[in-house]
Amino acid sequence: MRLRNKPWAKPLIEANPEFIATDPKKYRGVWQDRFNKKAPLYIEIGMGKGQFIIEMAQKYPARNFIGIELQTSVAAVVLKKQLELKLKNLQLVCANGSGVSEYFETGEVTGIYLNFSDPWPKKRQAKRRLTYPSFLKQYQTILREEGRLEFKTDNRGLFEYSVKSMNNFGMTFDNVLLDLHQSEETEDNIMTEYEEKFSKRGQVIYKLEAHFKGNESQTL
Amino acid sequence: MRLRNKPWAKPLIEANPEFIATDPKKYRGVWQDRFNKKAPLYIEIGMGKGQFIIEMAQKYPARNFIGIELQTSVAAVVLKKQLELKLKNLQLVCANGSGVSEYFETGEVTGIYLNFSDPWPKKRQAKRRLTYPSFLKQYQTILREEGRLEFKTDNRGLFEYSVKSMNNFGMTFDNVLLDLHQSEETEDNIMTEYEEKFSKRGQVIYKLEAHFKGNESQTL
Repeated sequence: MRLRNKPWAKPLIEANPEFIATDPKKYRGVWQDRFNKKAPLYIEIGMGKGQFIIEMAQKYPARNFIGIELQTSVAAVVLKKQLELKLKNLQLVCANGSGVSEYFETGEVTGIYLNFSDPWPKKRQAKRRLTYPSFLKQYQTILREEGRLEFKTDNRGLFEYSVKSMNNFGMTFDNVLLDLHQSEETEDNIMTEYEEKFSKRGQVIYKLEAHFKGNESQTL
Repeated sequence: MRLRNKPWAKPLIEANPEFIATDPKKYRGVWQDRFNKKAPLYIEIGMGKGQFIIEMAQKYPARNFIGIELQTSVAAVVLKKQLELKLKNLQLVCANGSGVSEYFETGEVTGIYLNFSDPWPKKRQAKRRLTYPSFLKQYQTILREEGRLEFKTDNRGLFEYSVKSMNNFGMTFDNVLLDLHQSEETEDNIMTEYEEKFSKRGQVIYKLEAHFKGNESQTL
């Protein structure tokens, strides 16, 4: 997601280091210290304007959440909301989501959310897709045993690619939904801003829930 | 697929044992003898009125095809067409497709087609679905190394179930298409009667191509 550059964004982020980290490597293995209490950790890679991660944090107070966003102007929008809400189980990160294995320790994360990630539709861009094997390898490392990846998109090409990529990587599928908003499992669904807009227009939303079989924390 | 009972069906089938087998167990391991020449063997489980398997046989003369159909009245419709066409690389079977490992020897088959199989939508009917693990186990046995399963359906629930079932069974996905007729790979697609009718009405057609990793023929 890109927004017009906001001159206030960077200063606001720098002024609130207790809510948003710009140097996530520093907290590798000790993320729990940034929260009010210790709890299973769920991260969203590419949180956009934060509607999903904020609602998740509100709905599940017994879990800790981290929303990661590369774009300073976008992350600052979420920070503004968080400065009002002051959710104790939500932390923000403004950094490149492609390096998560440098930000989190092996098995530190319980769940990963990928919502409406950039489809990078051209073949030569495949390695930038957040479900490309090099990323899956990182997720496998940081997820604890039976930790789960949840992936939503309205982009058919990206979903087709991701189903194949995750299968070929050896992930086990827990749930496959090819029209999330027509399924019986919508009740629990927290929508992103984008999802709300596009599903209202009748766009099909795909969802895949999966986990890694032999992840590193299992073999330790 | 069900058709009204046709009184001529059974006699016609019985009169043409060189084109249609009703006792497929008898040919286990020696199917090639029923064809003009030896060639890789492709089977369709549930051929309906046969449009798909007949066009495949016409398009790929260097392959041998077997169409299997349980319903006598339906199989007889295909037999009638074949009595006119007399395709040398097509054999028909009127028998229950749920017993294929009794009809084919380990590794005897190169490709299996499942087209618009009965969705058996209720949960308690799951074990009748042709992508239920007990069926996948049979396909794994009869398929030769790298032999492929191709599955098409317009039924979302069945496709969601099948993607999960085949993944959980350990199959490797080669291709996932969530709107076959909108994809670039439609050129090579041979349609069933049902597919032609429903895709014209704008119904989405799903397709999955997959193979077994460690099938028995590989470990022998």
